[in-house]
Amino acid sequence: MTSRERFYATYSIQGNKETAYARAEDICIEQTVEFPATLLTHDFIKEHVLGKIESFEQCDETSYRAVISFHADLCGNEFTQFLNVLFGNISIKPGIRVENVQLSDNLLKLFKGPRFGREGLRKLLGIQKRPMLFTAIKPLGLSAEELASLAHRFALGGIDIIKDDHGLADQRYAPFADRVRLCSEAVEKANEKTGHNCIYMANITASPDEMPKRARIAKENGAKALLISPGLAGLDTMRRIADDDALGLPIFSHPAFQGTYVLHPHSGISHAVLFGQLARLAGADATIFPNFGGRFSFTKEECIDLANGTKIPMGSIKTIFPAPGGGMSLERVPEMLEVYGNDVIFLVGAGLFTHGPDLIENCRYFRKLVDSFES
Amino acid sequence: MTSRERFYATYSIQGNKETAYARAEDICIEQTVEFPATLLTHDFIKEHVLGKIESFEQCDETSYRAVISFHADLCGNEFTQFLNVLFGNISIKPGIRVENVQLSDNLLKLFKGPRFGREGLRKLLGIQKRPMLFTAIKPLGLSAEELASLAHRFALGGIDIIKDDHGLADQRYAPFADRVRLCSEAVEKANEKTGHNCIYMANITASPDEMPKRARIAKENGAKALLISPGLAGLDTMRRIADDDALGLPIFSHPAFQGTYVLHPHSGISHAVLFGQLARLAGADATIFPNFGGRFSFTKEECIDLANGTKIPMGSIKTIFPAPGGGMSLERVPEMLEVYGNDVIFLVGAGLFTHGPDLIENCRYFRKLVDSFES
Repeated sequence: MTSRERFYATYSIQGNKETAYARAEDICIEQTVEFPATLLTHDFIKEHVLGKIESFEQCDETSYRAVISFHADLCGNEFTQFLNVLFGNISIKPGIRVENVQLSDNLLKLFKGPRFGREGLRKLLGIQKRPMLFTAIKPLGLSAEELASLAHRFALGGIDIIKDDHGLADQRYAPFADRVRLCSEAVEKANEKTGHNCIYMANITASPDEMPKRARIAKENGAKALLISPGLAGLDTMRRIADDDALGLPIFSHPAFQGTYVLHPHSGISHAVLFGQLARLAGADATIFPNFGGRFSFTKEECIDLANGTKIPMGSIKTIFPAPGGGMSLERVPEMLEVYGNDVIFLVGAGLFTHGPDLIENCRYFRKLVDSFES
Repeated sequence: MTSRERFYATYSIQGNKETAYARAEDICIEQTVEFPATLLTHDFIKEHVLGKIESFEQCDETSYRAVISFHADLCGNEFTQFLNVLFGNISIKPGIRVENVQLSDNLLKLFKGPRFGREGLRKLLGIQKRPMLFTAIKPLGLSAEELASLAHRFALGGIDIIKDDHGLADQRYAPFADRVRLCSEAVEKANEKTGHNCIYMANITASPDEMPKRARIAKENGAKALLISPGLAGLDTMRRIADDDALGLPIFSHPAFQGTYVLHPHSGISHAVLFGQLARLAGADATIFPNFGGRFSFTKEECIDLANGTKIPMGSIKTIFPAPGGGMSLERVPEMLEVYGNDVIFLVGAGLFTHGPDLIENCRYFRKLVDSFES
């Protein structure tokens, strides 16, 4: 089901056969003309603008699955309007969930997607096969010097990617430019000692005017990657940064403020679409999310769905890394590898502090866990 | 409960007393330090950065209501980071809903809010007391000329505000600049005949780079107001347009892609906060939403809550108009006035086409309904 100029969205719809089908017909209208079908007089609009039910089948006792196609022209070459056709007004209607998206060829060419993706990120970091280790400098309230000292120790211990905690913005405790400069230097100094290729990732989530400025400051001060929370800044704001050829830095997407979309199984957007497919279309090279069994509520099945969204074929849109966070420990490694495979970035948080008394040694312990996969 | 430098968020939390209180304590951590409280060594961070439970009381048999305060410094003078502290990570945790926000004095000064608000919009339109009439040109797929012809007839019939349907972007059927110019001219010509002061509102929802350009094109071509869907473009992207003194146009907020936040009573964000308080903080002068009893699912109680969010005191942040859409008919006027008062903008859709055979006469019919309130 690929098409040059129509895109396909799969919705699960609550209801019996009759009501669910009526709701599928409603989606065709609500997402396009928003106008009583009986009042439509133009054949062109009925043929070209209205959505079309391509298939309709029962999911389970209380729900149906409809594939609805839309002409790509409805999006007018814009990502925001693509999002609107996919889930604008129907976000307000309970019992409808976006399960999958299959873009048309022309939309797949329009959206560049991740600049690096899985392959590019492995190349950048010089890591062939093994899972990567990822952590955050925190807590908010530390000075830039204290955060840099943490980053230094993480890097000495063999962490691959060290990010700002997503709540680190430009607060007076650790102003953005100072923090980025000191943390980049601290990681660089550690790399000189270890011979590793650890990178520091700056959180640039801010207003749409400020974000390109922070991205530039980050790059000029040695940051090798960027963190963005699209739920706070807008998916298209992230995409704009990703598409900036003068920057050319990898982007990790953080799920802050997006959680509500996936919380209820009968509404919102599936984990695969929100944190996988839409993150990719909006230019993320990796997608951060709470792992099953951690302090959030995602189930193993939801994480499998999410991971699937990071890699299902989408034309020239690259595959990206899942970056599950929380609950990382020796015992959980086999289960996580089973779900995510080796193409995974383990976001290790408190475990680095609590495993033993020495932070650097704790990092080394986690590094050993993944090093065996490289050879 | 106002403070110079702390802001207060009210959350409803599902659970028995013990679990709900533990979850309130978790919010204090998750939204700030994201770090085990037992590992915090700095007194400054414990005192200043951690959230504080200010009150905790039972709501009903299955939930509690916690007021949690946060120091405004956590926001670092940024709206995106304010949103993050309010509901970033906990958006991913089920059973927590933002019910109310009370900003600190310094944040209320930082965010300018709506430029016009209720009073300014009444002044701009020259309407003293009566409810206003609002409609949309549609369906998507019509040419710019056809849309302008509709706008002309709406204006002749006495509609006060005529907006682009929120799905009208820059599609080839009716390119943005052409549409704005023709519709503005059509409304202006009608005003010359009627003596009314009808305004045309252009939808500028697009990428963050494109939106300021469209806003300028809209203004230069005669549009007197702007429509933005912050769920698609980002709340802070709307705020940036609102704050642009060179533009100085009123902004109406459309709920596309935001619905999921309010759909489930035990998670997400209340109608009052999302469509009222946050819309105001992000610069909207009116907030569009589906009225109770229409083709969406909002209840009367939810609409009352929403309307309350448009007018509760927020320092110098102006009150804004609720703009309920759908289901407008003669019979419903008394009930809607009871809920919203006279400070309401009635968004009339299909009713304008279906009331009788003549579109202009139908508009006049609705106009008569509200005219009696002016004297």
